[in-house]
Amino acid sequence: MDLKINTERLLAELHHLAKLTDCPPTTDASLPAPTQAVTRIVFTPRDLEARAWLTGLAQAAGFRVRTDAVGNTFLRWQGSDASLGAVGTGSHTDAIPHAGMYDGTVGVLGGLEAMRALKESGFVPKRSIETLMFTSEEPTRFGIGCLGSRLLGGVLDPEAADALLDRLPETEAGAVEGLTLKQVREAAGFHGSLAGVKLPAKYYDAWVELHIEQGPLLERDGIELGIVTNIAAPASYRYTIEGFGGHAGALLMPDRRDALCAAAEIILAVERLALEANANSGGVDTVATVGTVAVHPGAVNSVPSRVTMMLDIRDTDVDRRNGIMEALRSEIAVLEAKRGVKISEETINADQPSHSAPAILEALTAACEAEGATHRRMVSRAYHDSNFMARVAPIAMLFIPCRAGVSHRPDEYSTPEQIALGTRVLARTLAALSVA
Amino acid sequence: MDLKINTERLLAELHHLAKLTDCPPTTDASLPAPTQAVTRIVFTPRDLEARAWLTGLAQAAGFRVRTDAVGNTFLRWQGSDASLGAVGTGSHTDAIPHAGMYDGTVGVLGGLEAMRALKESGFVPKRSIETLMFTSEEPTRFGIGCLGSRLLGGVLDPEAADALLDRLPETEAGAVEGLTLKQVREAAGFHGSLAGVKLPAKYYDAWVELHIEQGPLLERDGIELGIVTNIAAPASYRYTIEGFGGHAGALLMPDRRDALCAAAEIILAVERLALEANANSGGVDTVATVGTVAVHPGAVNSVPSRVTMMLDIRDTDVDRRNGIMEALRSEIAVLEAKRGVKISEETINADQPSHSAPAILEALTAACEAEGATHRRMVSRAYHDSNFMARVAPIAMLFIPCRAGVSHRPDEYSTPEQIALGTRVLARTLAALSVA
Repeated sequence: MDLKINTERLLAELHHLAKLTDCPPTTDASLPAPTQAVTRIVFTPRDLEARAWLTGLAQAAGFRVRTDAVGNTFLRWQGSDASLGAVGTGSHTDAIPHAGMYDGTVGVLGGLEAMRALKESGFVPKRSIETLMFTSEEPTRFGIGCLGSRLLGGVLDPEAADALLDRLPETEAGAVEGLTLKQVREAAGFHGSLAGVKLPAKYYDAWVELHIEQGPLLERDGIELGIVTNIAAPASYRYTIEGFGGHAGALLMPDRRDALCAAAEIILAVERLALEANANSGGVDTVATVGTVAVHPGAVNSVPSRVTMMLDIRDTDVDRRNGIMEALRSEIAVLEAKRGVKISEETINADQPSHSAPAILEALTAACEAEGATHRRMVSRAYHDSNFMARVAPIAMLFIPCRAGVSHRPDEYSTPEQIALGTRVLARTLAALSVA
Repeated sequence: MDLKINTERLLAELHHLAKLTDCPPTTDASLPAPTQAVTRIVFTPRDLEARAWLTGLAQAAGFRVRTDAVGNTFLRWQGSDASLGAVGTGSHTDAIPHAGMYDGTVGVLGGLEAMRALKESGFVPKRSIETLMFTSEEPTRFGIGCLGSRLLGGVLDPEAADALLDRLPETEAGAVEGLTLKQVREAAGFHGSLAGVKLPAKYYDAWVELHIEQGPLLERDGIELGIVTNIAAPASYRYTIEGFGGHAGALLMPDRRDALCAAAEIILAVERLALEANANSGGVDTVATVGTVAVHPGAVNSVPSRVTMMLDIRDTDVDRRNGIMEALRSEIAVLEAKRGVKISEETINADQPSHSAPAILEALTAACEAEGATHRRMVSRAYHDSNFMARVAPIAMLFIPCRAGVSHRPDEYSTPEQIALGTRVLARTLAALSVA
């Protein structure tokens, strides 16, 4: 097989997609070019534009395109034996506000390029090969990550999903506050029952996702590719802290029940518990982050009466993660009593970790060696759609390095060579799995 | 002197003024009547309507009305000896969005009623007596509180004041975003140079402001009136904390420079330093509050790269306040080194505290005793125009209780009896100072 990835075409497509953004063009000279700040939130006009463009690319290459009720988009290269399960690859194209241009997109456009390159090389698939673009891997709009893949994997109740509320302010990118997912997806043109989204058993006999590492390890150690053995179990929680407000001049210190001071203690407890867990294990497998804080009433001369904030915690070991959460809850109970505030916790998601299939790990290893690429087995500490695909298919993931481990920022970057090598190894892996 | 405050007239006027609001009428049954949500922002049509109505009331009572270039409005009852400085009283009638109907208004309409009642009782002033309505005590529109009194007191540069930008969105109450104070005040009919606003020396030989307490102490302890000995020195600062962002899953704990964790340490340091200052002094004179926090990028799965927040700190002792700020800056320097973040501080305002004049405190005490009213000397920890009048006149303030200490909310409330008693004591004090 004379496999030739068209790097120029792939890079041009990545840059075209990056321009479908709700951020102004990046003119920040401090960012090493080429970069583009990307905001592309699910079902906004920009996202729909990106979907239409991707569909056009796939059709031009001779692939069939279908979408499901939540907008997951399947680009299918039909194999010679329709009785066999397919081989799937893919990722997402949505982006959180002011993010980078490689997260997710490399796996979608890289998957498409792998299929095109295989086709152009004369390869004939036995099992069908599909590139899947997942709806809303990012939680920005509906508050839950991996929306499309959760439904495909059957780990999200379809009715509960349809009732999720749009959290974008009315002024942003065409969103209307207070609508449900059902209303928003139908307005975007995706009809039908979400109950039909779950994939049937054996739909995919193998699944591989190509993605940037979103961490610094490959670059730091000069390794070209990462083969993912586990995806760390992610969980996220919303906290509401109710205190007592008043005038910042007149409400005296002894009479205060300041919601923000209580929030500050939780933020630091979260950090300390994660550091302690790493110290106890001698590893770095626990990460915990408070990423959002909203203060009410939010005036310089008002004592905060209410704070809401969100916690993200991930671990390869779900029991260790649960242990940290129990310790945090104990500290919160002490804090409530000490500060006279009321703190409530709402679970947004608390997912199981996933483990890769040995056969796919071996196929990835063989493909790396055929390309002469250095590789390492590693844990993914970022959330991926593959974590939910693991419920309905054997999975693995392939990581390419990204500069300084930076992601979810405009200066996120992987080199053309890194992207091309990842796509070549992906193509070889898909081909091998297709005829296995 | 047979002094008779016309409580019915005064209450009717307070209720009439409350109806000059840009809030819809209050229909919230949970608010104890009589209350009215008030929004009256400086130089909006509603504010101009209130000014015209107040002018009419003063003229009907036989007082002369003049305004200065920033719209401060002087209602003057001419005394018999024009060579002596006047006795002043007054407050403000502007209100932040969705506020109450007593903050400021009691001091303006109470001042006018005190002058009318004295006149009706046959009293003849030796020094002139004036009720002053200050422009923009609230910072809503131009971002700075006590605009009129800062100019009267000579503590705000007239050119800088004229260049202040209108911060109201275009859609609100007739405001046009981006205009300067000079443009807005001239459109409202107030012409001339702001340099002429500063009061000459000896314009007032005494100044007393009647105001609701905006705190819970008088009500809690069953005291009828508060005599204000000091106004706590208010200062506010904006902090920007620059850390390093990244993906909440992939950026490992040892590699983090989380801006929000640094912010949390500052929030708790501010609280601790204020509590320590109170513990050292054995008092409650220091208050410090972080009232706003904005997290960038503000996503559940992103490590915060930047936080901005605002601090409000007030103290009766400016040296103690400065000492706390120095201690905080030392802690921030340690925090920067420890966490690898960059923290910058911007001063929004850092005003001097004011101290009341013993002669006026004595006049207020004598008036309380003549009325048989219980009274207590106390510190004002809220910001008042009198803080800036102190630069050009001997001052004091008189507080009446307000329910549960609530202010800046629609359910702000003082009883007719409390308002009438405050006005009677004010009238007696003005009379005594006028002939002193």
